[in-house]
Amino acid sequence: MLDNIRVVLVNTSHPGNIGAVARAMKTMGLSDLRLVEPDQFPHPYATSRSAGAEDLLNQACVVSTLQEAVADCQLVIGTSARERKIPWPLINPRECAELAGQASRSNKKVAVVFGREDRGLTNDELALCNYHVNIPACEGYSSLNLGAAVQVIAYELRMSHLEQQQPEKLSSSVSQDCAFPDASHEEVERFLAHFEELLTQIEFLDPSNPGVVMTRFRRLFQRAMLDSKEVNMLRGVLSDTQRIIKQLSKTQPTG
Amino acid sequence: MLDNIRVVLVNTSHPGNIGAVARAMKTMGLSDLRLVEPDQFPHPYATSRSAGAEDLLNQACVVSTLQEAVADCQLVIGTSARERKIPWPLINPRECAELAGQASRSNKKVAVVFGREDRGLTNDELALCNYHVNIPACEGYSSLNLGAAVQVIAYELRMSHLEQQQPEKLSSSVSQDCAFPDASHEEVERFLAHFEELLTQIEFLDPSNPGVVMTRFRRLFQRAMLDSKEVNMLRGVLSDTQRIIKQLSKTQPTG
Repeated sequence: MLDNIRVVLVNTSHPGNIGAVARAMKTMGLSDLRLVEPDQFPHPYATSRSAGAEDLLNQACVVSTLQEAVADCQLVIGTSARERKIPWPLINPRECAELAGQASRSNKKVAVVFGREDRGLTNDELALCNYHVNIPACEGYSSLNLGAAVQVIAYELRMSHLEQQQPEKLSSSVSQDCAFPDASHEEVERFLAHFEELLTQIEFLDPSNPGVVMTRFRRLFQRAMLDSKEVNMLRGVLSDTQRIIKQLSKTQPTG
Repeated sequence: MLDNIRVVLVNTSHPGNIGAVARAMKTMGLSDLRLVEPDQFPHPYATSRSAGAEDLLNQACVVSTLQEAVADCQLVIGTSARERKIPWPLINPRECAELAGQASRSNKKVAVVFGREDRGLTNDELALCNYHVNIPACEGYSSLNLGAAVQVIAYELRMSHLEQQQPEKLSSSVSQDCAFPDASHEEVERFLAHFEELLTQIEFLDPSNPGVVMTRFRRLFQRAMLDSKEVNMLRGVLSDTQRIIKQLSKTQPTG
């Protein structure tokens, strides 16, 4: 799907930025780059900033107008500052990625267009676009670097792509990412009983007046979503502690 | 809310990247930057790449260890490549922003930690974190520029912030079941050091061959997001165990 999405840079001044854009694109799985009249390209600065994404620079098409760059595209989205005199459908990067994803899955060609470093796209250029996308920057300081702006859009395109491909991979991996299976309810209960036994033994817990101590510990260890390995380790600690106490008690003189 | 979120850069080699990070942060409304032993800072390259975000550079704290940089934080999230031998709770940038947003709205201090340009964070540094965040880059080419990585995370933090601000999207705030504040990074570290001491004492842990024992326990307790009361209880258990062992050792006959 990402193959159908093109990045277009209009009149880029600094060749280093073209390299940074290539790198940002490649990390996110994009490869189709078109340059509308860049000031200097190819250029060693572009190559060095691309940091291993030279293949994208080598394949990049240089054209002389934006119309030419997007001629074969069914969906064109232009990056824009928030305020424009003629309001266009304005979307955020996440909505941009959803739209672009839908279109490219239907085998449409999509272009996301980025303007000049200092003043973006002209009104005429923006008027060629189906949508305008705005990266929600701070009002007082909205000056995103060109490479950074492409990185944000490319990141959202990739997130949307991955969500489509493997929704389960994007969902929270917080507790399922362990190398060992989650402990069963029974394993955790046995650990908690063992823990309570030790707490009583070391007189941390008074069985005649237990209060909420075990409730608090129970909540803690339930929340931690222990895996089997962790339960075994914790029980090992309890057993070793009891063993030491027993050894020392044995050698203790009576009376 | 964004005021409670700190960006920490560890051992940054290129001062230009520090400037790019400052710019990325400022565009998204972040301002708290800490630098752990940067190679060169302050530096003219940092200033020029910051492009108007010099105020962040001027305020940036330089410290000598990661522990120092995050000592007052209740939630520490480290950026990481996907594959690690001992998996930690691994989240994506969007989940990272949700977690950080929830924490900072409860007036907790949050740090997002970024490693070296060439090899990221060490395993020891990652072990200091509650969560690891991974930017879902291409498998064959996952080399995000440091400034670009900060831009993606900062963008998600801002998106989450803006979603919260829009009243219609305000979800019922996650009810914190804990009556006590989350433990600070420092409190948790002190507990882990105390725990390690006991594990050595009961010979669960061999200091000459520690293996991954403490890493596993560290992961477990970082994941549990302990509150201050729980840390105190756990330390009470450790102290009482040590007290019993000491008492029994004293009364043990010599020879």
